[in-house]
Amino acid sequence: MLKGFNYPLTPKGKSTLNPPPPWYYSSDFLNIEFWSDPAAVAALLPPGLAPDRTANGHGNALFYDWQFSGENEEYLDPARYQYREFFLLFDALYEGKPVVYCPYIFVDNDAAIARGWTQGYPKRLGQVFQTRYYAATGKAGPGLTHGAKFAGTLTSGGQRLAEGLVILQEPVTDRSLLKQRPVVNLLHTARLAAGAQDKPAVHELVENVPRDVKIEQAWVGEGSLTLPVAKGEEMSDLAPVRCGKGIRASMAYIVDDLKTLKDLAK
Amino acid sequence: MLKGFNYPLTPKGKSTLNPPPPWYYSSDFLNIEFWSDPAAVAALLPPGLAPDRTANGHGNALFYDWQFSGENEEYLDPARYQYREFFLLFDALYEGKPVVYCPYIFVDNDAAIARGWTQGYPKRLGQVFQTRYYAATGKAGPGLTHGAKFAGTLTSGGQRLAEGLVILQEPVTDRSLLKQRPVVNLLHTARLAAGAQDKPAVHELVENVPRDVKIEQAWVGEGSLTLPVAKGEEMSDLAPVRCGKGIRASMAYIVDDLKTLKDLAK
Amino acid sequence: MLKGFNYPLTPKGKSTLNPPPPWYYSSDFLNIEFWSDPAAVAALLPPGLAPDRTANGHGNALFYDWQFSGENEEYLDPARYQYREFFLLFDALYEGKPVVYCPYIFVDNDAAIARGWTQGYPKRLGQVFQTRYYAATGKAGPGLTHGAKFAGTLTSGGQRLAEGLVILQEPVTDRSLLKQRPVVNLLHTARLAAGAQDKPAVHELVENVPRDVKIEQAWVGEGSLTLPVAKGEEMSDLAPVRCGKGIRASMAYIVDDLKTLKDLAK
Amino acid sequence: MLKGFNYPLTPKGKSTLNPPPPWYYSSDFLNIEFWSDPAAVAALLPPGLAPDRTANGHGNALFYDWQFSGENEEYLDPARYQYREFFLLFDALYEGKPVVYCPYIFVDNDAAIARGWTQGYPKRLGQVFQTRYYAATGKAGPGLTHGAKFAGTLTSGGQRLAEGLVILQEPVTDRSLLKQRPVVNLLHTARLAAGAQDKPAVHELVENVPRDVKIEQAWVGEGSLTLPVAKGEEMSDLAPVRCGKGIRASMAYIVDDLKTLKDLAK
Repeated sequence: MLKGFNYPLTPKGKSTLNPPPPWYYSSDFLNIEFWSDPAAVAALLPPGLAPDRTANGHGNALFYDWQFSGENEEYLDPARYQYREFFLLFDALYEGKPVVYCPYIFVDNDAAIARGWTQGYPKRLGQVFQTRYYAATGKAGPGLTHGAKFAGTLTSGGQRLAEGLVILQEPVTDRSLLKQRPVVNLLHTARLAAGAQDKPAVHELVENVPRDVKIEQAWVGEGSLTLPVAKGEEMSDLAPVRCGKGIRASMAYIVDDLKTLKDLAK
Repeated sequence: MLKGFNYPLTPKGKSTLNPPPPWYYSSDFLNIEFWSDPAAVAALLPPGLAPDRTANGHGNALFYDWQFSGENEEYLDPARYQYREFFLLFDALYEGKPVVYCPYIFVDNDAAIARGWTQGYPKRLGQVFQTRYYAATGKAGPGLTHGAKFAGTLTSGGQRLAEGLVILQEPVTDRSLLKQRPVVNLLHTARLAAGAQDKPAVHELVENVPRDVKIEQAWVGEGSLTLPVAKGEEMSDLAPVRCGKGIRASMAYIVDDLKTLKDLAK
Repeated sequence: MLKGFNYPLTPKGKSTLNPPPPWYYSSDFLNIEFWSDPAAVAALLPPGLAPDRTANGHGNALFYDWQFSGENEEYLDPARYQYREFFLLFDALYEGKPVVYCPYIFVDNDAAIARGWTQGYPKRLGQVFQTRYYAATGKAGPGLTHGAKFAGTLTSGGQRLAEGLVILQEPVTDRSLLKQRPVVNLLHTARLAAGAQDKPAVHELVENVPRDVKIEQAWVGEGSLTLPVAKGEEMSDLAPVRCGKGIRASMAYIVDDLKTLKDLAK
Repeated sequence: MLKGFNYPLTPKGKSTLNPPPPWYYSSDFLNIEFWSDPAAVAALLPPGLAPDRTANGHGNALFYDWQFSGENEEYLDPARYQYREFFLLFDALYEGKPVVYCPYIFVDNDAAIARGWTQGYPKRLGQVFQTRYYAATGKAGPGLTHGAKFAGTLTSGGQRLAEGLVILQEPVTDRSLLKQRPVVNLLHTARLAAGAQDKPAVHELVENVPRDVKIEQAWVGEGSLTLPVAKGEEMSDLAPVRCGKGIRASMAYIVDDLKTLKDLAK
């Protein structure tokens, strides 16, 4: 009997990319609100999701520094169980219900790719960095104070694809600021068989089911984001028309489920 | 309509990890023959494959320096369309027919992960290197001559997982040396839904269907391989009992199909 | 007039590896105390430093996650101005005065190599990771609490060269625990001219002159360290005979000076 | 007695970044001729070098895939002894003699940084790729034939800094095409001591002394190059006004000397 949740499946299940769920996460993150051309947002929604006209192209860009673990202290191998991530979320409607959809996401770790694809996140490899907060502050380490600056960058395939900045104003007291719409993704597994390349093995609209979400040390301020034009890339079609709030916080949560909303292959 | 074969699916299909098949490959490679404990080989075969008792634990370790392209000169973006690969193939039987099975494989590129998972190759990220042959030879560049040495190494998750060496003896004149059994893989896509984590979305025995395989500049000699013990890894269970021939050559081929032998999920 | 402190020197001085001093640093770090074979420690001291016989082979292994900046908010380009570091310090005597000497150090950033070599730190490239503390704790994010575990790893040239672990016991109340002897390094610049390869251009004993050192959030507990044997590497000659205290803390400081103790080239 | 040519200096000399000279190299390379604004070229020359007015801003961009070795088969550890490089060379005059000067150069390997700085090459880390030629050609592997295309790219600090293309026309029959002016560099070692930061420890004009240069498999055709604008970088000030020939070839040579032309510190 081979063991393993994601590849590879092996006799002992030790070499597998990921321990079995539940999956535990802790992180620091930047969240930058912005508005893109609503037509560009509408163009990237999969079947089953409708544009949220009232949102007017509203999205969020997120930079995460993650630590991940299964049940067995995997986080004590930080070379494998830390990773960095950048992604975009855009407002949309599923059967009239407000949700967000993730069209682009980048990480620097293969296990994170595997978990992502298992949840409908269309991850590619990228180099992601965000300014860190350290308890020992100074000119190289911004504090959690009014005016402190935190930047993020994304490079993939050797090209700079995103740059963001958050300038803190005040601690978040209104927790509703930290609420997020449910994430609805396109779960997709291609099929290579010659006659079936247009019939994916899996093609579903799925809803993420995070639990035990915990947000700490949250500050809010101004956000700004650029999505530069790059060869062979189309994320810049979503370049911000204007930017809004910026948040910097820590977050922990658990993932051990996924809900299929609709099988699009049928 | 979203476009793209692998993730992400986007309005223009430019940001996708891979162009649609056919997929074109050129490479240099090292191929090292060895024998593992037959029980260790038997233990890693998926349902539907039987140990090849006459093979006595026979396998091959391969180091590849690849260049990849679709139909649109993608190879002219070498930062994305080159990658390096290490994998193991073990002799097995499918319905009595001699095949090989790939339990472990490592690449340094996300598009190669996506293509691999689409073909049943259980790819993880790794850093793979092999000694190169250059037309301008010298003490840093072995020629294609008797006694020339070519080495390969694999590191993943910060640990050295394989080291190989080929010492050339003579050009390959007997082309049967270059024949390979069909590769039969386990095509596997996990399912995260809470009640279905033991019911993968895809779980099939598949046969690779390479075409237009071209091998050039092939030399044969002695091979040697080590698979060191590493924390949290079990590839070392296959550590060679003895080693055999080593080959160094260039190879090109095309992939645009995959054949399902058996749906194991049913 | 060309501008730049380290290479390259250019018309505007923007492309240089480092802004001019002062250099500002913030970090999180692990510090693991251990004892090596005193003969192995004595063997690696440069001329001018004597073994500290009372120290009995005492050293410290340090894992740092750094953020760096000059005067112009360079830390807002985190892809260039963050880096990770591992190094060893061993007790020694300079003219009878207790100091520490750094024989091995690894970073993942070229600007850090340039600054290091300018201060006598013999830096090589390595991949360094340490478990992070996040305000949002959980199974993937240890808190600053009794029993919490923080691990560190180093890989260089594809081989695992160090692994460390700190298990927290209590906050540091006795600040003398955080004191460090002065760091005395070998400042060395090789000379390639055919007749002068044994006459380095620079070969001095130098003392580091950190200022405004600030340590926050310090916890102390047990430390453990391994320095595995690796091909072509000799750091494992210093493998711990036993280990001592472990510390986890945040640190900030400024560097803008270096003191030459002795010109060894003369 | 500590051993080692470059850092670190250790009891056995095994851990050092580089074996002692002679240093052996083999490679494949692209060489693209272009012309920049002559004023931009003049602005980057160090004292002792004069603009070559007749050259009219003439330079060369080079992409190299290197293999390196000392006397002890170091090339059999390809994870450490292979690297990729991009650099620019501009025509200049030293005491009226035609030479070339290297203002910018990028590699992906620390030992190559150490050797470079020892020869006056102002190396930074970068990710460099060039299209490879394989004996097994196809849509992913251009042959050495009329019309074949070879591309190169450079990324550093997460930003794309150069892109080049060579389209082959014919084998090089006129070997004078492959001649190169002597490379004259600025050998520079900064000094951190508070009062001496404007008094580098080493500041010399040096001439490279390659020997046993061997060029094979050379083809010539058209070259093209772009040097995109990037934040915090000034290489784009040299963006080509026009481009000229492109060459693709293999090269081997040996380095074991360096000639000081002028001590600029005096």
